[in-house]
Amino acid sequence: MASNSFGLMFRITTFGESHGPAIGVVIDGCPAGLILSVEDIQRELDLRRPGTSIYTSPRKEEDKAEILSGLFEGKTTGAPIAILIRNQDADSAQYDAFKNVYRPGHANFTYLEKYGAFDYRGGGRSSARETAARVAAGAVAKKLLAHFHIFYAAFISEIGGISTKSLDLSPLHLLRQKTYASPIFCPCEQSEPLMREKIRQTQEEKDSLGGIVACLAHLPPGLGDPVYNKLEALLASAMLSIPASKGFEIGLGFDATRKKGSEHNDPFDLDEQNLVRTTTNHAGGTLGGISTGSPLFFRVAFKPTSSIKKPQQTLSLQKDKTYLAPPESARHDPCVAIRAVPVVEAMAALVLADALLMGRCSKL
Amino acid sequence: MASNSFGLMFRITTFGESHGPAIGVVIDGCPAGLILSVEDIQRELDLRRPGTSIYTSPRKEEDKAEILSGLFEGKTTGAPIAILIRNQDADSAQYDAFKNVYRPGHANFTYLEKYGAFDYRGGGRSSARETAARVAAGAVAKKLLAHFHIFYAAFISEIGGISTKSLDLSPLHLLRQKTYASPIFCPCEQSEPLMREKIRQTQEEKDSLGGIVACLAHLPPGLGDPVYNKLEALLASAMLSIPASKGFEIGLGFDATRKKGSEHNDPFDLDEQNLVRTTTNHAGGTLGGISTGSPLFFRVAFKPTSSIKKPQQTLSLQKDKTYLAPPESARHDPCVAIRAVPVVEAMAALVLADALLMGRCSKL
Amino acid sequence: MASNSFGLMFRITTFGESHGPAIGVVIDGCPAGLILSVEDIQRELDLRRPGTSIYTSPRKEEDKAEILSGLFEGKTTGAPIAILIRNQDADSAQYDAFKNVYRPGHANFTYLEKYGAFDYRGGGRSSARETAARVAAGAVAKKLLAHFHIFYAAFISEIGGISTKSLDLSPLHLLRQKTYASPIFCPCEQSEPLMREKIRQTQEEKDSLGGIVACLAHLPPGLGDPVYNKLEALLASAMLSIPASKGFEIGLGFDATRKKGSEHNDPFDLDEQNLVRTTTNHAGGTLGGISTGSPLFFRVAFKPTSSIKKPQQTLSLQKDKTYLAPPESARHDPCVAIRAVPVVEAMAALVLADALLMGRCSKL
Amino acid sequence: MASNSFGLMFRITTFGESHGPAIGVVIDGCPAGLILSVEDIQRELDLRRPGTSIYTSPRKEEDKAEILSGLFEGKTTGAPIAILIRNQDADSAQYDAFKNVYRPGHANFTYLEKYGAFDYRGGGRSSARETAARVAAGAVAKKLLAHFHIFYAAFISEIGGISTKSLDLSPLHLLRQKTYASPIFCPCEQSEPLMREKIRQTQEEKDSLGGIVACLAHLPPGLGDPVYNKLEALLASAMLSIPASKGFEIGLGFDATRKKGSEHNDPFDLDEQNLVRTTTNHAGGTLGGISTGSPLFFRVAFKPTSSIKKPQQTLSLQKDKTYLAPPESARHDPCVAIRAVPVVEAMAALVLADALLMGRCSKL
Repeated sequence: MASNSFGLMFRITTFGESHGPAIGVVIDGCPAGLILSVEDIQRELDLRRPGTSIYTSPRKEEDKAEILSGLFEGKTTGAPIAILIRNQDADSAQYDAFKNVYRPGHANFTYLEKYGAFDYRGGGRSSARETAARVAAGAVAKKLLAHFHIFYAAFISEIGGISTKSLDLSPLHLLRQKTYASPIFCPCEQSEPLMREKIRQTQEEKDSLGGIVACLAHLPPGLGDPVYNKLEALLASAMLSIPASKGFEIGLGFDATRKKGSEHNDPFDLDEQNLVRTTTNHAGGTLGGISTGSPLFFRVAFKPTSSIKKPQQTLSLQKDKTYLAPPESARHDPCVAIRAVPVVEAMAALVLADALLMGRCSKL
Repeated sequence: MASNSFGLMFRITTFGESHGPAIGVVIDGCPAGLILSVEDIQRELDLRRPGTSIYTSPRKEEDKAEILSGLFEGKTTGAPIAILIRNQDADSAQYDAFKNVYRPGHANFTYLEKYGAFDYRGGGRSSARETAARVAAGAVAKKLLAHFHIFYAAFISEIGGISTKSLDLSPLHLLRQKTYASPIFCPCEQSEPLMREKIRQTQEEKDSLGGIVACLAHLPPGLGDPVYNKLEALLASAMLSIPASKGFEIGLGFDATRKKGSEHNDPFDLDEQNLVRTTTNHAGGTLGGISTGSPLFFRVAFKPTSSIKKPQQTLSLQKDKTYLAPPESARHDPCVAIRAVPVVEAMAALVLADALLMGRCSKL
Repeated sequence: MASNSFGLMFRITTFGESHGPAIGVVIDGCPAGLILSVEDIQRELDLRRPGTSIYTSPRKEEDKAEILSGLFEGKTTGAPIAILIRNQDADSAQYDAFKNVYRPGHANFTYLEKYGAFDYRGGGRSSARETAARVAAGAVAKKLLAHFHIFYAAFISEIGGISTKSLDLSPLHLLRQKTYASPIFCPCEQSEPLMREKIRQTQEEKDSLGGIVACLAHLPPGLGDPVYNKLEALLASAMLSIPASKGFEIGLGFDATRKKGSEHNDPFDLDEQNLVRTTTNHAGGTLGGISTGSPLFFRVAFKPTSSIKKPQQTLSLQKDKTYLAPPESARHDPCVAIRAVPVVEAMAALVLADALLMGRCSKL
Repeated sequence: MASNSFGLMFRITTFGESHGPAIGVVIDGCPAGLILSVEDIQRELDLRRPGTSIYTSPRKEEDKAEILSGLFEGKTTGAPIAILIRNQDADSAQYDAFKNVYRPGHANFTYLEKYGAFDYRGGGRSSARETAARVAAGAVAKKLLAHFHIFYAAFISEIGGISTKSLDLSPLHLLRQKTYASPIFCPCEQSEPLMREKIRQTQEEKDSLGGIVACLAHLPPGLGDPVYNKLEALLASAMLSIPASKGFEIGLGFDATRKKGSEHNDPFDLDEQNLVRTTTNHAGGTLGGISTGSPLFFRVAFKPTSSIKKPQQTLSLQKDKTYLAPPESARHDPCVAIRAVPVVEAMAALVLADALLMGRCSKL
């Protein structure tokens, strides 16, 4: 079943395995006339790239993007934009240890059940490496959104139970700047050092941590298409398609369930530009699945990295009890939520670009 | 933009407004040969019907389903199944009070921004009444799933901050029975009376409550299609498309972010039938977006009902400050999460039916 | 497999069987703000209605349309528009003769092979009656197109080998007027009486005739989306989905294969309004799958009606040789191409409405 | 608008321009477990490759396919299969002559109208070079079909008005062998030399010819999904999406319109294997949009190549009258129908693979 495309009008199709020759993406539906260069894509890919600090996997991938199509004289033409990223530092030998066991928290069991086959080298298609293709596509979506003055910033809001405090969410570009200045993508000066310390400790314990990524976007009212393409429905689907994600909430999310209606409802009033806006934003920027013009705000939960160096009991493919103890040289992220930050941002951009184009057809 | 369909192979398209002549659904892609009667649909609709207790809206709707197509000699034929539900107790006069104001927590502002028009009578298309069509379609999905021994139960797991305790989740059919025996769809003997008391209090305060709906399903391994039709991605999209929903989590969800990898990973072992299964189920029944064979478990957050009888400050459509004070006769649910229970179940059934059919094409 | 929807942005889903309670359609994606009334739909349905002359089936159907949703204060709201048509003159008893035989030229054999079931009454889902739903939806598409000054006219261009001569294709509204003034929907004064005579003769022989429907549309340049949603690809798919259609050609079509490039190429020049247009229109209004601004012109072949009163040899469902001899009272069209005229027009309108909306996203 | 994908379950997305760095395709939905190698793809690409005889464009392209993903240990894994073909012999300088004029019969006018931009080098995205990606994808579809004993053969049935005579259509593999043994892909010993002579003459006249490609397939009954994914509707859409195609007909096609019902209806009888089949096959292998088990037979019309060396009058982009006279070195096919043969075959294979998978969900 074809299931590697996302989006309706601004539509991406990704391909590639962790240890295959390449990964990539085809973007179909980008309007003609958008100024775009390979640097726009490379800049975003570099944010997600592993091996840049002790807080991410030491796998060294240059992640060099090549644009294969859809550009002419520096602008998009309306034709599909294909982006190719060759794999380089794929060390498949390291995965021989995993070849014959069901890896806890990993997808090899379910892939084998479903497809009868699993490319165990680096996790094959189920690897988080696939998300580099999303980031590349997201870079194009971001260029489109910037043209229409839509901006966003994702950041770490919690790691291992340590959460950000009284964060300044505005202006957005400063928030984003502070985020990517931190090796763990956390813009909070207070909590960031605590999180880093906790990560180091956990690495020493050969264990891993979970975390929460928050995302904020400024966009006009009117985006999102009821009843099944509601903005939050598309976002939820986008976020839960990211490897290791376990939850999504918009606005107050699960906390909203503990409020009364009179507390939770956002009153309407005129803002300083005489526009109808809500004075609070418990809803997180949508009503009835359509953007209100207030900032879009949502959070995504990521489980702790499944790959740990601690030995774990499991079964071999022959159903015998065995222990899985990855070699010291195994390369894993101590907390997948960190590198998920640019991925969340990319997926959000893809959803918004799609909603933006869909919005062109709502009225005569 | 066409946005009123859900599902790929088992695909529904809903239509209808709260106070129009009728609502309904067309189900396209149901395999031929399934035994189906209008009673199968009516039974499910009756669970969601308002006006049956003081805990739900007093609007009286018979919600009589009529099957218009797709059946022959008591079985599905492979042709689309259209189901029609006529509206009856639509009291539009009551909505004159809302005609000229932006309703806090409601969609009339965003619909007006997007479409330039809004059918204010009963909320029009944005009304939760649309979910009756989902429940009707879900009834057909459930018949299909039952044929393949896939079962599920949704229930209230929290209202106004009061949550269920040490609930017996097995056997599934008993859990479901206990759920629908309670007027607030909560199977927990301990917490259910407390929730009811809290609802009554809040009604007296002319206010409303939020809640959390949990859902459990038993299904075989192998369902779900990476990377964008992962089971949890489809479920998240389905759940966030339900009116008033604000969050989705699978397995431990947001709590998973506070675990370490060694705690969160579910070890593989053989179960009593010698099948490879996990001994714990923190993941909630999927790995890599594909079902593991362990129970699927997810939770959906619902905000407090936006319609309250307490007066609220807002703006008129002419941008003047005004107060919104619904008449005493206004009919609202004190907690939308309650009637969302059969809707969550229906949407889960639709996702699973779709995944089941998609799964037929994963192997040669 | 869901296969009863057509279109991407202006999307219809049809349902219903010939002898079931009703047929209908849900139109999803019609922009808000379009003035629409049930009369707009009824007018088109009346053109396709059977029983109005000796040249069409004597089945008497009022084909009364009811709009169930999507309208508010006389305009579309952006919500799905559901249209219901109750079946009335369904005489199922007449079909008992067909219950147990494979009908030559009919779909009961293939439906039984595919679905294991077939609603033999009136042909069930495979009946041309389904096309009434298309005509109803097409009426909405036509209103949308009219708003953007896009017009069309379909007409009989050949019946039983007799073709129209030197037909005046302009102005379009006169061509359409003359078409529907003829009981066989043929605007050619010269050939129309000959066709009628041939139909009468063939009816006496208890036989049937085939025919060709031509369609002309005036539309701006720029519609159609390469490479798989080319205008002619969408049209071809639309036309070949009409029951009994066997071929589609655009411009010179099959005759183009006998021309040389220098003869076939349409030279570019300025028209009287100083617009770039081609001086001839062998291409039929598209180049590279996109409209040129010259009139769109295509033709659709329809086989002779499969239902004839002449006895035919065939097999029973039990595989025994048998004869099929419909009763004298059997009600069939002598030439299905005639009533296909409004269906071709409707499907063309649906394709153009879809292309129009898709076209909104081709540029920044 | 995303419009570069074809198929629903076996879904391809193509990308690339004639003179860009590469063209390619992503195949999504191929079931796991299919034995596949790059040679399977190369073999098909070599059939379509230009520069192999005087009857095709002298452009020299190796058309070397590289499989980037979706394979593991020689078999498909269920993950998307990306195939890359680098462009090599792109001589863009040659296209400077075309840069500033509207080319008769070409798409630069319509692309400029639609997108505001046109990659004039080699026709950019509108070039027939894109069809190499279809052929590569078709090769994978063919492997899948072969596994289920579905076979096909496309061939030239007419060029410049010269048509094949009394051709032996069986056995299919011999027909296919004879086809590809001819440099003009025509299996008819009688007419093939006449066609070649006519091509040579026309080349001398600096002109071009049109032609008709026929296609035959052997497949089981039950494929095709009414009412909008009828087998002939999907085929028509596939064929009309091929550059230069102007018509599609199935079975007797347009000739069927001149038959009477009693002549056209194919009688049912038992075949030598005691299966229910029709004794004639005027329908061309489908009834009601579903395959009958009789051979599928359809024909596709191709206009004469638009690129000719004869000077043609046209307009410059500045709307001045001018002459277009391509240089002697310009490289064009004398008759595009020839190289369309493997493309028709590939598109047919894609449609059948899709229908095959869709067919898995028609029954319980």
